[in-house]
Amino acid sequence: MTTDLLIQQILTKKNYLTVGLDTTAEKLPDHLKNKKDNILNFNKAIIDATIPWCVAYKINTAFYETLGSRGWDIMEETMNYIPATHFKIADAKRGDIGNTSTQYARAFFETLNFDALTVAPYMGEDSIRPFLEYENKVTIVLGLTSNHGAADFEMIQAGDRKLYEHVFEKVASWGSPQQLMFVAGATQAQYLESIRKIVPEHFLLVPGVGFQGGSLKEVSDAGLTPQGGLLVNASRAIIYASSNENFADEAAEIAKQYQYEMQEYLTQQGIV
Amino acid sequence: MTTDLLIQQILTKKNYLTVGLDTTAEKLPDHLKNKKDNILNFNKAIIDATIPWCVAYKINTAFYETLGSRGWDIMEETMNYIPATHFKIADAKRGDIGNTSTQYARAFFETLNFDALTVAPYMGEDSIRPFLEYENKVTIVLGLTSNHGAADFEMIQAGDRKLYEHVFEKVASWGSPQQLMFVAGATQAQYLESIRKIVPEHFLLVPGVGFQGGSLKEVSDAGLTPQGGLLVNASRAIIYASSNENFADEAAEIAKQYQYEMQEYLTQQGIV
Repeated sequence: MTTDLLIQQILTKKNYLTVGLDTTAEKLPDHLKNKKDNILNFNKAIIDATIPWCVAYKINTAFYETLGSRGWDIMEETMNYIPATHFKIADAKRGDIGNTSTQYARAFFETLNFDALTVAPYMGEDSIRPFLEYENKVTIVLGLTSNHGAADFEMIQAGDRKLYEHVFEKVASWGSPQQLMFVAGATQAQYLESIRKIVPEHFLLVPGVGFQGGSLKEVSDAGLTPQGGLLVNASRAIIYASSNENFADEAAEIAKQYQYEMQEYLTQQGIV
Repeated sequence: MTTDLLIQQILTKKNYLTVGLDTTAEKLPDHLKNKKDNILNFNKAIIDATIPWCVAYKINTAFYETLGSRGWDIMEETMNYIPATHFKIADAKRGDIGNTSTQYARAFFETLNFDALTVAPYMGEDSIRPFLEYENKVTIVLGLTSNHGAADFEMIQAGDRKLYEHVFEKVASWGSPQQLMFVAGATQAQYLESIRKIVPEHFLLVPGVGFQGGSLKEVSDAGLTPQGGLLVNASRAIIYASSNENFADEAAEIAKQYQYEMQEYLTQQGIV
Protein backbone atom coordinates (compact mmCIF):
# COMPACT_ATOMS: atom_id res chain seq x y z
CA MET A 1 0.00 0.00 0.00
CA THR A 2 1.35 3.42 -0.96
CA THR A 3 1.10 6.58 1.12
CA ASP A 4 -1.59 7.92 -1.24
CA LEU A 5 -3.76 4.87 -0.59
CA LEU A 6 -3.08 5.17 3.12
CA ILE A 7 -4.36 8.76 3.05
CA GLN A 8 -7.54 7.55 1.32
CA GLN A 9 -8.05 4.98 4.07
CA ILE A 10 -7.56 7.60 6.78
CA LEU A 11 -10.10 9.95 5.21
CA THR A 12 -12.59 7.13 4.58
CA LYS A 13 -12.30 5.33 7.91
CA LYS A 14 -11.86 8.58 9.82
CA ASN A 15 -8.99 7.45 11.98
CA TYR A 16 -5.22 7.23 11.98
CA LEU A 17 -4.85 4.33 14.38
CA THR A 18 -2.09 1.73 14.12
CA VAL A 19 -2.51 -1.41 16.19
CA GLY A 20 0.83 -2.65 17.44
CA LEU A 21 1.18 -6.41 17.53
CA ASP A 22 3.79 -6.67 20.31
CA THR A 23 2.60 -10.16 21.12
CA THR A 24 4.44 -12.26 23.68
CA ALA A 25 3.52 -15.73 24.98
CA GLU A 26 3.59 -14.68 28.65
CA LYS A 27 0.93 -12.05 28.16
CA LEU A 28 -1.58 -14.16 26.26
CA PRO A 29 -4.98 -14.74 27.86
CA ASP A 30 -4.93 -17.80 30.13
CA HIS A 31 -7.12 -19.91 27.86
CA LEU A 32 -4.56 -19.54 25.04
CA LYS A 33 -1.48 -20.33 27.09
CA ASN A 34 0.44 -23.42 26.02
CA LYS A 35 -1.85 -23.92 23.04
CA LYS A 36 -0.51 -24.70 19.57
CA ASP A 37 -0.18 -21.64 17.31
CA ASN A 38 -1.45 -19.45 20.12
CA ILE A 39 0.49 -16.32 19.17
CA LEU A 40 -0.63 -16.49 15.56
CA ASN A 41 -4.22 -17.21 16.54
CA PHE A 42 -4.17 -14.36 19.06
CA ASN A 43 -2.89 -12.00 16.36
CA LYS A 44 -5.57 -13.17 13.93
CA ALA A 45 -8.31 -12.61 16.50
CA ILE A 46 -6.98 -9.13 17.29
CA ILE A 47 -6.81 -8.30 13.58
CA ASP A 48 -10.32 -9.61 12.88
CA ALA A 49 -11.72 -7.58 15.76
CA THR A 50 -9.90 -4.30 15.10
CA ILE A 51 -10.05 -4.09 11.29
CA PRO A 52 -12.95 -1.59 11.27
CA TRP A 53 -11.25 0.77 13.75
CA CYS A 54 -7.72 1.16 12.46
CA VAL A 55 -5.84 1.84 9.22
CA ALA A 56 -2.55 0.08 9.97
CA TYR A 57 -0.88 -2.73 11.86
CA LYS A 58 2.63 -2.59 13.21
CA ILE A 59 4.58 -5.75 13.90
CA ASN A 60 7.37 -5.31 16.41
CA THR A 61 10.02 -7.73 15.18
CA ALA A 62 11.69 -8.13 18.60
CA PHE A 63 8.71 -10.01 20.01
CA TYR A 64 8.95 -12.59 17.23
CA GLU A 65 12.72 -12.91 17.12
CA THR A 66 12.72 -14.21 20.69
CA LEU A 67 11.12 -17.35 19.24
CA GLY A 68 13.83 -17.85 16.61
CA SER A 69 12.81 -19.08 13.16
CA ARG A 70 9.35 -20.07 14.42
CA GLY A 71 8.82 -16.45 15.40
CA TRP A 72 9.87 -15.36 11.94
CA ASP A 73 7.23 -17.70 10.49
CA ILE A 74 4.56 -16.31 12.83
CA MET A 75 5.54 -12.80 11.80
CA GLU A 76 5.18 -13.74 8.13
CA GLU A 77 1.85 -15.51 8.65
CA THR A 78 0.53 -12.57 10.66
CA MET A 79 1.68 -10.19 7.92
CA ASN A 80 -0.09 -12.26 5.27
CA TYR A 81 -3.28 -12.29 7.34
CA ILE A 82 -3.56 -8.49 7.40
CA PRO A 83 -5.90 -7.44 4.57
CA ALA A 84 -4.69 -5.26 1.68
CA THR A 85 -6.86 -2.43 3.01
CA HIS A 86 -4.45 -1.90 5.88
CA PHE A 87 -0.93 -0.48 5.95
CA LYS A 88 1.65 -3.00 7.19
CA ILE A 89 4.58 -1.71 9.19
CA ALA A 90 7.61 -3.73 10.33
CA ASP A 91 8.89 -2.00 13.44
CA ALA A 92 12.42 -3.32 13.20
CA LYS A 93 14.61 -0.21 13.63
CA ARG A 94 17.22 -1.58 11.24
CA GLY A 95 20.13 0.29 9.66
CA ASP A 96 23.72 -0.54 8.71
CA ILE A 97 26.31 0.23 6.03
CA GLY A 98 24.91 0.35 2.51
CA ASN A 99 25.36 -3.23 1.33
CA THR A 100 23.90 -4.51 4.62
CA SER A 101 20.93 -2.12 4.55
CA THR A 102 20.26 -3.44 1.04
CA GLN A 103 19.84 -6.89 2.58
CA TYR A 104 17.50 -5.57 5.28
CA ALA A 105 15.42 -3.79 2.63
CA ARG A 106 15.17 -7.04 0.71
CA ALA A 107 14.18 -8.94 3.87
CA PHE A 108 11.31 -6.63 4.80
CA PHE A 109 10.16 -5.24 1.43
CA GLU A 110 10.58 -8.38 -0.70
CA THR A 111 10.76 -11.56 1.40
CA LEU A 112 8.11 -10.33 3.85
CA ASN A 113 6.39 -7.74 1.64
CA PHE A 114 5.75 -5.13 4.34
CA ASP A 115 4.59 -1.69 3.18
CA ALA A 116 6.91 0.13 5.57
CA LEU A 117 9.91 -0.39 7.82
CA THR A 118 11.30 1.61 10.74
CA VAL A 119 14.96 2.54 10.41
CA ALA A 120 17.54 4.07 12.78
CA PRO A 121 19.34 7.23 11.57
CA TYR A 122 22.65 7.11 13.49
CA MET A 123 24.76 5.82 10.57
CA GLY A 124 23.54 8.48 8.14
CA GLU A 125 22.58 8.72 4.50
CA ASP A 126 24.12 5.63 2.95
CA SER A 127 22.52 3.49 5.67
CA ILE A 128 19.05 4.80 4.68
CA ARG A 129 19.29 5.18 0.89
CA PRO A 130 18.92 1.44 0.12
CA PHE A 131 15.44 1.50 1.69
CA LEU A 132 14.41 4.57 -0.29
CA GLU A 133 15.28 2.80 -3.53
CA TYR A 134 11.99 0.94 -3.18
CA GLU A 135 9.70 3.56 -4.67
CA ASN A 136 6.44 1.96 -3.59
CA LYS A 137 7.57 1.26 -0.05
CA VAL A 138 7.81 3.60 2.90
CA THR A 139 10.87 4.15 5.09
CA ILE A 140 10.10 5.39 8.60
CA VAL A 141 13.13 6.97 10.25
CA LEU A 142 13.48 7.44 14.00
CA GLY A 143 13.28 11.15 14.75
CA LEU A 144 12.33 11.76 18.36
CA THR A 145 11.41 8.69 20.38
CA SER A 146 8.99 8.23 23.27
CA ASN A 147 11.39 6.84 25.88
CA HIS A 148 13.37 8.56 28.65
CA GLY A 149 16.62 7.72 26.85
CA ALA A 150 15.65 10.19 24.11
CA ALA A 151 17.23 12.80 26.38
CA ASP A 152 20.67 11.17 26.14
CA PHE A 153 21.51 11.82 22.50
CA GLU A 154 18.41 12.82 20.50
CA MET A 155 17.98 15.96 22.62
CA ILE A 156 21.64 16.90 22.65
CA GLN A 157 22.30 20.50 21.56
CA ALA A 158 24.27 20.68 18.30
CA GLY A 159 24.78 24.24 17.11
CA ASP A 160 21.49 26.13 16.87
CA ARG A 161 19.32 23.07 17.29
CA LYS A 162 19.03 19.66 18.87
CA LEU A 163 20.24 16.45 17.24
CA TYR A 164 16.73 15.18 16.51
CA GLU A 165 15.97 18.43 14.66
CA HIS A 166 19.06 17.90 12.51
CA VAL A 167 17.83 14.37 11.83
CA PHE A 168 14.37 15.52 10.73
CA GLU A 169 15.81 18.24 8.52
CA LYS A 170 18.57 16.27 6.85
CA VAL A 171 16.67 13.00 6.38
CA ALA A 172 13.64 14.87 4.98
CA SER A 173 15.89 16.12 2.17
CA TRP A 174 16.53 12.50 1.12
CA GLY A 175 12.94 11.43 0.44
CA SER A 176 9.52 12.75 -0.47
CA PRO A 177 6.53 12.52 1.92
CA GLN A 178 5.36 9.64 -0.27
CA GLN A 179 8.44 7.59 0.56
CA LEU A 180 9.52 8.77 3.94
CA MET A 181 7.91 9.06 7.37
CA PHE A 182 9.33 9.74 10.82
CA VAL A 183 8.87 8.29 14.27
CA ALA A 184 7.92 11.03 16.74
CA GLY A 185 7.05 9.90 20.26
CA ALA A 186 3.72 10.92 21.79
CA THR A 187 5.31 11.48 25.17
CA GLN A 188 7.13 14.37 23.48
CA ALA A 189 3.99 16.14 22.21
CA GLN A 190 5.37 19.52 23.23
CA TYR A 191 8.02 19.11 20.55
CA LEU A 192 5.65 18.12 17.76
CA GLU A 193 4.95 21.74 16.89
CA SER A 194 8.62 22.43 16.13
CA ILE A 195 8.87 19.11 14.26
CA ARG A 196 5.92 20.12 12.07
CA LYS A 197 7.79 23.30 11.13
CA ILE A 198 10.69 21.18 9.83
CA VAL A 199 8.55 18.51 8.15
CA PRO A 200 5.17 20.09 7.40
CA GLU A 201 4.01 17.26 5.14
CA HIS A 202 5.75 14.01 6.11
CA PHE A 203 3.72 11.46 8.03
CA LEU A 204 4.66 10.98 11.66
CA LEU A 205 4.36 7.53 13.22
CA VAL A 206 3.59 8.25 16.84
CA PRO A 207 4.12 5.56 19.47
CA GLY A 208 3.68 6.16 23.16
CA VAL A 209 -0.06 6.87 23.33
CA GLY A 210 -1.82 4.64 25.85
CA PHE A 211 0.51 2.53 27.94
CA GLN A 212 3.41 4.99 27.74
CA GLY A 213 1.20 7.93 28.75
CA GLY A 214 1.17 10.21 25.69
CA SER A 215 -1.91 12.38 25.04
CA LEU A 216 -3.79 11.69 21.82
CA LYS A 217 -5.34 15.14 21.90
CA GLU A 218 -2.02 16.95 22.19
CA VAL A 219 -0.46 14.80 19.46
CA SER A 220 -3.42 15.40 17.14
CA ASP A 221 -3.54 19.15 17.77
CA ALA A 222 0.12 19.55 16.92
CA GLY A 223 0.59 16.81 14.34
CA LEU A 224 -2.42 16.53 12.00
CA THR A 225 -2.13 17.85 8.45
CA PRO A 226 -4.74 18.23 5.68
CA GLN A 227 -3.82 14.68 4.55
CA GLY A 228 -3.94 13.28 8.03
CA GLY A 229 -0.19 13.13 8.37
CA LEU A 230 -0.32 11.01 11.50
CA LEU A 231 -0.27 7.34 12.36
CA VAL A 232 -0.79 6.92 16.08
CA ASN A 233 0.18 3.54 17.44
CA ALA A 234 -1.20 1.79 20.49
CA SER A 235 0.03 -1.70 21.30
CA ARG A 236 -0.40 -2.96 24.86
CA ALA A 237 -3.41 -0.72 25.60
CA ILE A 238 -5.32 -2.50 22.83
CA ILE A 239 -4.03 -6.05 22.51
CA TYR A 240 -3.89 -6.65 26.26
CA ALA A 241 -7.11 -4.77 27.08
CA SER A 242 -8.39 -7.98 28.66
CA SER A 243 -6.84 -11.31 29.59
CA ASN A 244 -10.19 -13.09 29.44
CA GLU A 245 -11.72 -15.13 26.65
CA ASN A 246 -13.33 -11.96 25.32
CA PHE A 247 -9.92 -10.30 24.79
CA ALA A 248 -10.63 -9.59 21.11
CA ASP A 249 -13.93 -7.82 21.86
CA GLU A 250 -12.23 -5.73 24.52
CA ALA A 251 -9.39 -4.91 22.11
CA ALA A 252 -11.98 -3.82 19.53
CA GLU A 253 -13.70 -1.69 22.17
CA ILE A 254 -10.49 0.20 22.97
CA ALA A 255 -9.62 0.58 19.29
CA LYS A 256 -13.14 1.90 18.68
CA GLN A 257 -12.67 4.51 21.42
CA TYR A 258 -9.48 5.65 19.72
CA GLN A 259 -11.29 5.78 16.36
CA TYR A 260 -14.10 7.93 17.83
CA GLU A 261 -11.65 10.30 19.42
CA MET A 262 -9.61 10.53 16.21
CA GLN A 263 -12.72 11.18 14.13
CA GLU A 264 -13.47 14.08 16.46
CA TYR A 265 -10.05 15.64 15.90
CA LEU A 266 -10.21 15.07 12.14
CA THR A 267 -13.61 16.77 12.08
CA GLN A 268 -12.54 19.65 14.32
CA GLN A 269 -9.66 20.41 12.00
CA GLY A 270 -11.88 20.15 8.90
CA ILE A 271 -9.88 17.25 7.48
CA VAL A 272 -12.92 14.98 7.04
CA MET B 1 32.49 -16.66 26.22
CA THR B 2 33.30 -13.76 28.53
CA THR B 3 35.63 -10.87 27.73
CA ASP B 4 38.27 -12.35 30.06
CA LEU B 5 38.29 -15.59 28.09
CA LEU B 6 38.40 -13.63 24.84
CA ILE B 7 41.51 -11.83 26.07
CA GLN B 8 43.13 -15.21 26.83
CA GLN B 9 42.35 -16.35 23.30
CA ILE B 10 43.86 -13.20 21.81
CA LEU B 11 47.06 -13.59 23.81
CA THR B 12 47.31 -17.32 23.06
CA LYS B 13 46.44 -17.22 19.37
CA LYS B 14 48.26 -13.94 18.83
CA ASN B 15 45.58 -12.27 16.77
CA TYR B 16 42.42 -10.19 17.17
CA LEU B 17 40.73 -11.20 13.94
CA THR B 18 36.97 -11.54 13.56
CA VAL B 19 35.72 -13.29 10.46
CA GLY B 20 32.46 -11.75 9.27
CA LEU B 21 29.99 -14.24 7.84
CA ASP B 22 28.09 -11.88 5.53
CA THR B 23 27.09 -14.79 3.34
CA THR B 24 24.73 -14.30 0.45
CA ALA B 25 23.60 -16.88 -2.15
CA GLU B 26 24.60 -14.76 -5.14
CA LYS B 27 28.22 -14.59 -4.06
CA LEU B 28 28.75 -18.28 -3.39
CA PRO B 29 31.32 -20.11 -5.49
CA ASP B 30 29.77 -21.46 -8.68
CA HIS B 31 29.99 -25.10 -7.65
CA LEU B 32 27.81 -24.38 -4.59
CA LYS B 33 25.15 -22.36 -6.39
CA ASN B 34 21.65 -23.87 -6.30
CA LYS B 35 22.84 -26.66 -4.01
CA LYS B 36 20.86 -27.68 -0.92
CA ASP B 37 22.10 -26.08 2.33
CA ASN B 38 24.76 -24.24 0.37
CA ILE B 39 24.93 -21.19 2.62
CA LEU B 40 25.26 -23.28 5.76
CA ASN B 41 27.83 -25.56 4.14
CA PHE B 42 29.78 -22.56 2.87
CA ASN B 43 29.80 -21.09 6.39
CA LYS B 44 30.94 -24.39 7.88
CA ALA B 45 33.78 -24.67 5.35
CA ILE B 46 34.87 -21.08 6.08
CA ILE B 47 34.75 -21.74 9.83
CA ASP B 48 36.70 -25.00 9.55
CA ALA B 49 39.37 -23.32 7.46
CA THR B 50 39.76 -20.13 9.50
CA ILE B 51 39.54 -21.46 13.08
CA PRO B 52 43.32 -21.38 13.65
CA TRP B 53 43.67 -17.78 12.42
CA CYS B 54 40.91 -15.88 14.20
CA VAL B 55 39.39 -15.45 17.67
CA ALA B 56 35.83 -14.50 16.75
CA TYR B 57 33.08 -14.86 14.17
CA LYS B 58 30.53 -12.18 13.41
CA ILE B 59 27.21 -13.07 11.86
CA ASN B 60 25.54 -10.19 10.06
CA THR B 61 21.84 -10.82 10.63
CA ALA B 62 20.71 -8.89 7.53
CA PHE B 63 22.16 -11.48 5.18
CA TYR B 64 20.12 -14.22 6.83
CA GLU B 65 16.89 -12.27 7.28
CA THR B 66 16.57 -11.90 3.52
CA LEU B 67 15.83 -15.64 3.52
CA GLY B 68 13.03 -15.36 6.09
CA SER B 69 12.68 -18.10 8.71
CA ARG B 70 15.02 -20.38 6.77
CA GLY B 71 17.70 -17.73 7.11
CA TRP B 72 17.06 -17.59 10.83
CA ASP B 73 17.63 -21.36 10.98
CA ILE B 74 20.86 -21.08 8.99
CA MET B 75 22.02 -18.34 11.36
CA GLU B 76 21.29 -20.58 14.35
CA GLU B 77 22.98 -23.62 12.80
CA THR B 78 26.02 -21.55 11.86
CA MET B 79 26.14 -20.15 15.40
CA ASN B 80 26.00 -23.66 16.86
CA TYR B 81 28.80 -24.80 14.55
CA ILE B 82 31.26 -22.20 15.86
CA PRO B 83 33.38 -23.85 18.57
CA ALA B 84 33.34 -22.62 22.18
CA THR B 85 36.92 -21.40 21.74
CA HIS B 86 35.67 -18.54 19.55
CA PHE B 87 33.72 -15.41 20.45
CA LYS B 88 30.33 -15.26 18.70
CA ILE B 89 28.99 -11.86 17.67
CA ALA B 90 25.54 -11.13 16.27
CA ASP B 91 25.92 -8.00 14.18
CA ALA B 92 22.30 -6.95 14.36
CA LYS B 93 22.43 -3.26 15.38
CA ARG B 94 19.25 -3.57 17.41
CA GLY B 95 17.82 -1.08 19.92
CA ASP B 96 14.36 0.10 20.93
CA ILE B 97 12.40 1.20 24.02
CA GLY B 98 13.16 -0.83 27.14
CA ASN B 99 10.54 -3.57 26.95
CA THR B 100 11.36 -4.16 23.29
CA SER B 101 15.13 -4.21 23.84
CA THR B 102 14.45 -6.84 26.52
CA GLN B 103 12.94 -9.02 23.79
CA TYR B 104 15.93 -8.46 21.48
CA ALA B 105 18.29 -9.35 24.33
CA ARG B 106 16.34 -12.56 24.88
CA ALA B 107 16.40 -13.35 21.15
CA PHE B 108 20.17 -13.04 20.77
CA PHE B 109 21.48 -13.94 24.25
CA GLU B 110 19.04 -16.74 25.12
CA THR B 111 17.29 -18.16 22.04
CA LEU B 112 20.42 -17.95 19.89
CA ASN B 113 23.05 -17.90 22.67
CA PHE B 114 25.43 -15.41 21.05
CA ASP B 115 28.24 -14.03 23.22
CA ALA B 116 27.76 -10.48 21.98
CA LEU B 117 25.34 -8.28 20.09
CA THR B 118 25.79 -4.96 18.29
CA VAL B 119 23.37 -2.24 19.40
CA ALA B 120 22.51 1.25 18.09
CA PRO B 121 22.78 4.15 20.57
CA TYR B 122 20.31 6.71 19.17
CA MET B 123 17.49 5.96 21.66
CA GLY B 124 19.73 6.29 24.73
CA GLU B 125 20.20 4.57 28.05
CA ASP B 126 16.94 2.66 28.54
CA SER B 127 17.31 1.19 25.05
CA ILE B 128 20.72 -0.27 26.01
CA ARG B 129 20.27 -1.24 29.68
CA PRO B 130 18.27 -4.43 28.98
CA PHE B 131 21.27 -5.88 27.11
CA LEU B 132 23.66 -4.98 29.94
CA GLU B 133 21.51 -6.92 32.39
CA TYR B 134 23.08 -10.08 30.97
CA GLU B 135 26.26 -10.09 33.03
CA ASN B 136 28.06 -12.78 31.05
CA LYS B 137 27.19 -11.33 27.66
CA VAL B 138 28.75 -8.42 25.82
CA THR B 139 26.91 -5.43 24.38
CA ILE B 140 28.69 -3.72 21.49
CA VAL B 141 27.43 -0.19 20.94
CA LEU B 142 27.89 1.73 17.68
CA GLY B 143 30.31 4.55 18.32
CA LEU B 144 31.88 5.73 15.09
CA THR B 145 31.07 3.71 12.00
CA SER B 146 33.09 3.01 8.86
CA ASN B 147 30.68 4.37 6.25
CA HIS B 148 30.45 7.78 4.55
CA GLY B 149 27.13 8.46 6.32
CA ALA B 150 29.01 8.66 9.63
CA ALA B 151 29.58 12.31 8.67
CA ASP B 152 25.84 13.09 8.73
CA PHE B 153 25.11 12.71 12.45
CA GLU B 154 27.93 10.86 14.25
CA MET B 155 30.39 13.65 13.37
CA ILE B 156 28.03 16.52 14.16
CA GLN B 157 29.52 19.09 16.56
CA ALA B 158 27.63 19.20 19.87
CA GLY B 159 29.18 21.64 22.31
CA ASP B 160 32.88 20.96 22.82
CA ARG B 161 32.85 17.63 21.04
CA LYS B 162 31.27 15.58 18.31
CA LEU B 163 28.20 13.39 18.80
CA TYR B 164 30.16 10.13 18.58
CA GLU B 165 32.46 11.34 21.37
CA HIS B 166 29.40 12.01 23.56
CA VAL B 167 28.22 8.49 22.73
CA PHE B 168 31.53 6.88 23.75
CA GLU B 169 31.71 8.89 26.95
CA LYS B 170 28.12 8.48 28.12
CA VAL B 171 27.66 4.84 27.13
CA ALA B 172 31.00 3.89 28.73
CA SER B 173 29.60 5.09 32.06
CA TRP B 174 26.82 2.48 31.79
CA GLY B 175 28.96 -0.65 31.60
CA SER B 176 32.37 -2.04 32.47
CA PRO B 177 34.90 -3.09 29.83
CA GLN B 178 33.87 -6.67 30.66
CA GLN B 179 30.30 -6.03 29.50
CA LEU B 180 30.56 -3.32 26.95
CA MET B 181 32.44 -2.82 23.71
CA PHE B 182 32.16 -0.22 20.94
CA VAL B 183 32.10 -0.28 17.16
CA ALA B 184 34.78 2.03 15.77
CA GLY B 185 35.26 1.99 12.00
CA ALA B 186 38.69 1.30 10.56
CA THR B 187 38.18 3.87 7.83
CA GLN B 188 38.22 6.41 10.66
CA ALA B 189 41.60 5.37 12.08
CA GLN B 190 42.63 8.99 12.54
CA TYR B 191 39.92 9.28 15.20
CA LEU B 192 40.91 6.15 17.12
CA GLU B 193 43.46 8.04 19.16
CA SER B 194 40.88 10.42 20.57
CA ILE B 195 38.48 7.51 21.11
CA ARG B 196 41.14 5.69 23.13
CA LYS B 197 41.41 8.74 25.39
CA ILE B 198 37.68 8.46 26.18
CA VAL B 199 37.60 4.67 26.49
CA PRO B 200 41.14 3.53 27.35
CA GLU B 201 40.10 -0.02 28.27
CA HIS B 202 36.94 -0.97 26.40
CA PHE B 203 37.28 -3.33 23.45
CA LEU B 204 36.71 -1.79 20.03
CA LEU B 205 35.12 -3.88 17.31
CA VAL B 206 36.61 -2.49 14.12
CA PRO B 207 34.94 -3.18 10.78
CA GLY B 208 36.10 -1.66 7.54
CA VAL B 209 39.51 -3.30 7.19
CA GLY B 210 39.93 -5.00 3.83
CA PHE B 211 37.09 -4.40 1.43
CA GLN B 212 36.19 -0.99 2.87
CA GLY B 213 39.81 0.17 2.73
CA GLY B 214 40.81 0.69 6.37
CA SER B 215 44.45 0.20 7.38
CA LEU B 216 45.15 -2.58 9.88
CA LYS B 217 48.44 -0.96 10.87
CA GLU B 218 46.87 2.40 11.68
CA VAL B 219 44.04 0.78 13.60
CA SER B 220 46.46 -1.37 15.58
CA ASP B 221 48.84 1.49 16.36
CA ALA B 222 46.05 3.63 17.74
CA GLY B 223 43.73 1.00 19.20
CA LEU B 224 45.67 -1.83 20.87
CA THR B 225 45.77 -1.99 24.67
CA PRO B 226 47.73 -4.28 27.05
CA GLN B 227 44.75 -6.71 26.91
CA GLY B 228 44.47 -6.51 23.17
CA GLY B 229 41.42 -4.28 23.26
CA LEU B 230 40.68 -4.75 19.57
CA LEU B 231 38.60 -7.06 17.46
CA VAL B 232 39.23 -6.31 13.81
CA ASN B 233 36.63 -7.68 11.43
CA ALA B 234 37.08 -8.65 7.81
CA SER B 235 34.17 -10.15 5.95
CA ARG B 236 34.20 -10.01 2.16
CA ALA B 237 38.01 -9.92 1.92
CA ILE B 238 38.15 -13.33 3.60
CA ILE B 239 35.00 -15.25 2.74
CA TYR B 240 35.00 -14.23 -0.93
CA ALA B 241 38.78 -14.49 -1.38
CA SER B 242 38.10 -16.97 -4.17
CA SER B 243 35.04 -18.13 -6.06
CA ASN B 244 36.65 -21.42 -6.98
CA GLU B 245 36.32 -24.81 -5.33
CA ASN B 246 39.31 -23.96 -3.15
CA PHE B 247 37.49 -20.94 -1.63
CA ALA B 248 38.02 -22.21 1.93
CA ASP B 249 41.76 -22.60 1.48
CA GLU B 250 41.97 -19.12 -0.01
CA ALA B 251 39.91 -17.73 2.88
CA ALA B 252 42.28 -19.41 5.33
CA GLU B 253 45.24 -17.93 3.46
CA ILE B 254 43.88 -14.38 3.81
CA ALA B 255 42.94 -14.94 7.46
CA LYS B 256 46.46 -16.28 8.08
CA GLN B 257 47.96 -13.14 6.54
CA TYR B 258 45.88 -11.04 8.93
CA GLN B 259 46.98 -13.24 11.84
CA TYR B 260 50.66 -12.82 10.94
CA GLU B 261 50.31 -9.08 10.64
CA MET B 262 48.42 -8.88 13.93
CA GLN B 263 51.03 -11.00 15.71
CA GLU B 264 53.63 -8.51 14.52
CA TYR B 265 51.73 -5.56 16.01
CA LEU B 266 51.04 -7.43 19.26
CA THR B 267 54.74 -8.24 19.52
CA GLN B 268 55.88 -4.72 18.62
CA GLN B 269 53.73 -3.31 21.40
CA GLY B 270 54.95 -5.92 23.90
CA ILE B 271 51.46 -7.36 24.40
CA VAL B 272 52.51 -10.94 23.60
